[in-house]
Amino acid sequence: MLATTNAVLLDQQEITEISAQLGTNSLMGLSLAKMISDTQTYMAAPIEVPGHGEAGGYEHNRHKQNYQYINQAGRLFLITGDEQYAKFTAEILTEYADKYLGFGFHIQRNTNPPGRLFHQILNEHVWLLYSSLGYSCIKHWLNDEQRQHIESKLFQPMLNMFTVKYGHDFDRIHNHGLWAVAAVAICGLAIDKPEYVEMSVHGLKGDDVSGGFLAQISQLFAPSGYYMEGPYYHRYAIRPLCLFAEVLHRHRPSLNIFEYKDQVIGKTIKALLATAYPNGVFPALNDASLSMGIKDQGVVVAVSLAYKHYGHDDKLLGMANIQQQVWIHGCGSALSQGFEKSTNTSLPHWPSVELNEGPNGDRGAQGFIRLQSQDGDVSQLVMNYGQHGMGHGHFDTLGISFFNRGQEVLKEYGFGRWVNVEPKFGGRYLDENKSYARQTIAHNAVAVDQGCQNDFDVETADAKHGVPHFFENQTKDLQAVSAFADNFYPGVDQQRSLLLINDDALDAPLLLDVFRINSEEEHSYDYALQYQGQIIRCNSDYQMHGELLPMGSDFGYQHLWNVAQGKAANNSLVSWLQGNSYYSWISASEANDELFFTRVGANDPQYNLRSETSLILRRQAKSTVFANVLETHGYFNEAVEASTNARGKVTEVKVIASNEIGTVIQILGENIHFTVMLSNQRNISADTQHSIETNQQTYCWQGSLALEKNRG
Amino acid sequence: MLATTNAVLLDQQEITEISAQLGTNSLMGLSLAKMISDTQTYMAAPIEVPGHGEAGGYEHNRHKQNYQYINQAGRLFLITGDEQYAKFTAEILTEYADKYLGFGFHIQRNTNPPGRLFHQILNEHVWLLYSSLGYSCIKHWLNDEQRQHIESKLFQPMLNMFTVKYGHDFDRIHNHGLWAVAAVAICGLAIDKPEYVEMSVHGLKGDDVSGGFLAQISQLFAPSGYYMEGPYYHRYAIRPLCLFAEVLHRHRPSLNIFEYKDQVIGKTIKALLATAYPNGVFPALNDASLSMGIKDQGVVVAVSLAYKHYGHDDKLLGMANIQQQVWIHGCGSALSQGFEKSTNTSLPHWPSVELNEGPNGDRGAQGFIRLQSQDGDVSQLVMNYGQHGMGHGHFDTLGISFFNRGQEVLKEYGFGRWVNVEPKFGGRYLDENKSYARQTIAHNAVAVDQGCQNDFDVETADAKHGVPHFFENQTKDLQAVSAFADNFYPGVDQQRSLLLINDDALDAPLLLDVFRINSEEEHSYDYALQYQGQIIRCNSDYQMHGELLPMGSDFGYQHLWNVAQGKAANNSLVSWLQGNSYYSWISASEANDELFFTRVGANDPQYNLRSETSLILRRQAKSTVFANVLETHGYFNEAVEASTNARGKVTEVKVIASNEIGTVIQILGENIHFTVMLSNQRNISADTQHSIETNQQTYCWQGSLALEKNRG
Repeated sequence: MLATTNAVLLDQQEITEISAQLGTNSLMGLSLAKMISDTQTYMAAPIEVPGHGEAGGYEHNRHKQNYQYINQAGRLFLITGDEQYAKFTAEILTEYADKYLGFGFHIQRNTNPPGRLFHQILNEHVWLLYSSLGYSCIKHWLNDEQRQHIESKLFQPMLNMFTVKYGHDFDRIHNHGLWAVAAVAICGLAIDKPEYVEMSVHGLKGDDVSGGFLAQISQLFAPSGYYMEGPYYHRYAIRPLCLFAEVLHRHRPSLNIFEYKDQVIGKTIKALLATAYPNGVFPALNDASLSMGIKDQGVVVAVSLAYKHYGHDDKLLGMANIQQQVWIHGCGSALSQGFEKSTNTSLPHWPSVELNEGPNGDRGAQGFIRLQSQDGDVSQLVMNYGQHGMGHGHFDTLGISFFNRGQEVLKEYGFGRWVNVEPKFGGRYLDENKSYARQTIAHNAVAVDQGCQNDFDVETADAKHGVPHFFENQTKDLQAVSAFADNFYPGVDQQRSLLLINDDALDAPLLLDVFRINSEEEHSYDYALQYQGQIIRCNSDYQMHGELLPMGSDFGYQHLWNVAQGKAANNSLVSWLQGNSYYSWISASEANDELFFTRVGANDPQYNLRSETSLILRRQAKSTVFANVLETHGYFNEAVEASTNARGKVTEVKVIASNEIGTVIQILGENIHFTVMLSNQRNISADTQHSIETNQQTYCWQGSLALEKNRG
Repeated sequence: MLATTNAVLLDQQEITEISAQLGTNSLMGLSLAKMISDTQTYMAAPIEVPGHGEAGGYEHNRHKQNYQYINQAGRLFLITGDEQYAKFTAEILTEYADKYLGFGFHIQRNTNPPGRLFHQILNEHVWLLYSSLGYSCIKHWLNDEQRQHIESKLFQPMLNMFTVKYGHDFDRIHNHGLWAVAAVAICGLAIDKPEYVEMSVHGLKGDDVSGGFLAQISQLFAPSGYYMEGPYYHRYAIRPLCLFAEVLHRHRPSLNIFEYKDQVIGKTIKALLATAYPNGVFPALNDASLSMGIKDQGVVVAVSLAYKHYGHDDKLLGMANIQQQVWIHGCGSALSQGFEKSTNTSLPHWPSVELNEGPNGDRGAQGFIRLQSQDGDVSQLVMNYGQHGMGHGHFDTLGISFFNRGQEVLKEYGFGRWVNVEPKFGGRYLDENKSYARQTIAHNAVAVDQGCQNDFDVETADAKHGVPHFFENQTKDLQAVSAFADNFYPGVDQQRSLLLINDDALDAPLLLDVFRINSEEEHSYDYALQYQGQIIRCNSDYQMHGELLPMGSDFGYQHLWNVAQGKAANNSLVSWLQGNSYYSWISASEANDELFFTRVGANDPQYNLRSETSLILRRQAKSTVFANVLETHGYFNEAVEASTNARGKVTEVKVIASNEIGTVIQILGENIHFTVMLSNQRNISADTQHSIETNQQTYCWQGSLALEKNRG
């Protein structure tokens, strides 16, 4: 037996610190208790190492659970000193070593090469990473023969497969590549083969450009730290990134990895965290699940690591409060201690932030606007005016989502996928992801001529990006963002400006949405809002159809039932009830605008889509402005039969003027008289003067926008 | 000033006991903290006594809040000794006394006479009850003039209105009547007019039969304690019932009210509690909200009172655990102390219970079947085979609902009403309550010839009731219920038998549903299940319609979109995902059965209905048996991307035989081979022998049913 532990990620002092929290109510103590109970349950069942299985199927899940518990049991052996954990880890690794080379390779089914355990080596990378970590925790407890068996029959063949057989795929600049290099390096450390660390850090060519961890973290993120595939894929990439960075911090201290490239690691962690809604769930930008959030394992690791290596931050404690756990590691100890000491661990309130996109930060941005109401609730608006996001991109530039009172109000549909639900095409992406979820009309955006941005062509879309106009986050009663999207439809330029406004007359921040379109040709514009809940009130004279037909035949419209339609009223209003809150949408609709109520579900023979609802305001025009507010108001609680302010306060939205200089909007209601002036000129500065005359009135303002209350 | 308090419901010892809990974490301490913070928030706003308003509107809500805080502030004055509470209570009562007689009467809008504050005196009764209680807490703190003003200008006129002007409506045998007598008696005590107590207890005629509290509690409940309008209305009646009973206990001890009529009060409280789902929410029998549960104020009072006066019961502590509060009263002190002492306050697991209906308990029953799985989760099945329930009754005799894993799986639609949502017809019952929610097809039942039971005629329905057949609740792996409904459709007799079966091969209790129909004429039978969630798998060759039409033109069918239909497969299977759980329905379908998928929403121009889904299996037959199982299986968690056992174990359900003696069913699947024998003979005993021969096999059993596992 070896004398002491040489666990890749834990030293003796950390182990002692963590052990001291066993049985306490600190976040570390709670995390340990959960891990112990969870691991005990798993260990109570017989060890099972199955053969191949379908993606998402029983065998697939079993292999996933196995690596998770190899990793957990290994750590628990060091922390508790209880040999049952070492015994379990040794037995299961031995059984894998007995069987691994006997498993043939899966049949290749997608672009990712197949492994011996999983249908794609991505999963096998993850398996290797966690199993190596677990192995490194018990290695000193094994005898030479056991070590030899596991290393030669399991780990070394895996390393060969990843770096030789699939060498072409090993260290590429891609989120999957991060898993590959982290797994190979960690396994290399666990079995004392430092050459694998070198190739993982610097790439097979050793040039720090074409591959390897340093090249990956230099090239995968924008200067803002944003990851172009969006938070859902970002949180998946952040896990190997953080694990490997922590490994390098202790095993290659000369790299000074946490300072590397102007702290790119810290920056990208904070960028990811800054996208989250106030409840910790990530907006489903691009292909994404609706429920992925900061409780994900990778983000738990990232928050602990950021706290340890980039210093105290109340917002991180707020996130730990949502997570109710820490990484069971020295970094997690630091966070747990910080949490114990702090008196301010309320929910995190991140400031509004604009995250630029592209290698140089000049390919648009993602805007995250937040405003807090008097009762403390945070409203968050998200607008996409960045890049398309490659194969996982949605055609939704200038699309928005909106969250408050604990729920998403203007919804992202997310991906068309039932992840890991085996009977749903093995849990993989479904056809409806393309035919509906990625289409423009599935978003809170404007679809032109019932089509899709860039004609649903990924290459065209990847070549374009949105153009930031202004971003105002300096005052606590007004935050704003504006951006352009030129020629996403041929000959059509779009500009969307969004404001969140606090006022004593209102229960919550008012969302003003001014969607301006310029075109020399007449088009049909569909301004769509993905609402959810029960329609309470509508002032338009619509007809509910006696028979339902799809809204169209392509670009997602084939999946929308046309439930009701009618001529939109002047200042058309639709109110709905979602959860405990009322929402009212009031639009400066024009004569001949038509209002549609839709429901997802047409042409979906396998029930692959969720039955969701939208409003569409349709207008035939050349250049035009859609000006709308969304008011959050009142309270409803069915269980106690309480309802207040079910009608809201805003009654009218008017477009006073709109031209190349600016747009002037009026919002009227009970004790509400707002005039909003927005710049439409490109490349303005804070000093740029704007002046618009209309109806013997002159509206002048400086800089991006002005809000006047109670102007006559 | 008077020397000491003569609060109607609190004596000095109780006040001392309650005060001692201020600032503690006991249930009483938590309840006090919440009441104080809540009352302080309300008192911080200016006092406002508005005039008339719409049902559910602002003024209506304000009057409701006012009585609530008069009551709370009065009690808090006694408990905390802080005069700010007395001052607030005095001021607001004085302002009501200033204005009350100046308010005219509302215009009468429904069968309930109008008050001066509210559109119906029911609300005004509640107002008087709570305001009198609050007044009695501060009366000794007021001077003579204040007392005189409040009593002569407010309370006495209210008493006159209720007992003279609306005397004909005062003490009737009805749940509203309970509020009337409780309010009048409590006010009588508060202002020292004992004559009002007498008339409230014994009725205006003093005969204890035609009216008054004693007559009400003798006549309103079945011997089982069940209230025919269902738990939703029961929990509303239980509040004045308990408050008045507690008042009588201390002010008319000679009545010995808690022993009255063989403990009718205790019995009806326990009957109400025994209907609740494991999460504390009441099944929405008849017109009811889907979210009303044991956290309702009335039930909080009832649980505390039952614990004090009918003794310790672990199930009551389990309910208090869900409530996380107690009645702030001596009864609540007792419960809070019991809770502190107990080591077993897990969620309550009520035994299966059959609650008979009708004054003599011979008008059918409501069946509540519960079975616990190995992981502790309780599955609950509810079947209605009792009375119709008068004006709030639904036409759903033999209808069922089913709950497990924290959610209702086979759903009750509940009422067609957005309670207190003012823009939805003042929060009152909507037309769609009749046109959809009360119809047979809206339930988990069989609709015949696309019609409704008893042709939707209340008088016909009230004259009938279901007939209990057997109820088996003795073993922990099998519970069962069976009942008949004869002639609810002309010439059609129905029998429904339901079993919950535990087995090691299954994740959770299996629900077997055997719905047997006898008729000499051919009919079209629609076996309907109200499911909720995402369809995962279906083995029938259905077509999703390219255009949607309503399922019919009357009896609720006009509100159902026909989304998809097809010939049902042999052993047709439909799986869906609801929340974190999978459900599979496997049916012994017959050749030519047709399967429909529906969605609520057609012919609902105001969006008054919720968009819910159902499966319908349609069969043309004379006599027939629908035999089905519902398997609960697997686990799904999108946030952590986990899915297990998405396919379930049962593959086949067969009707081996069915005649006047019994029905024999086989259930087959992975490690599952069950044979179930059910009695169809009426008036059986535990000794009755049954024997059926079919295909050279003989099936013999004694008593109501037999279950054999692994019979060849």
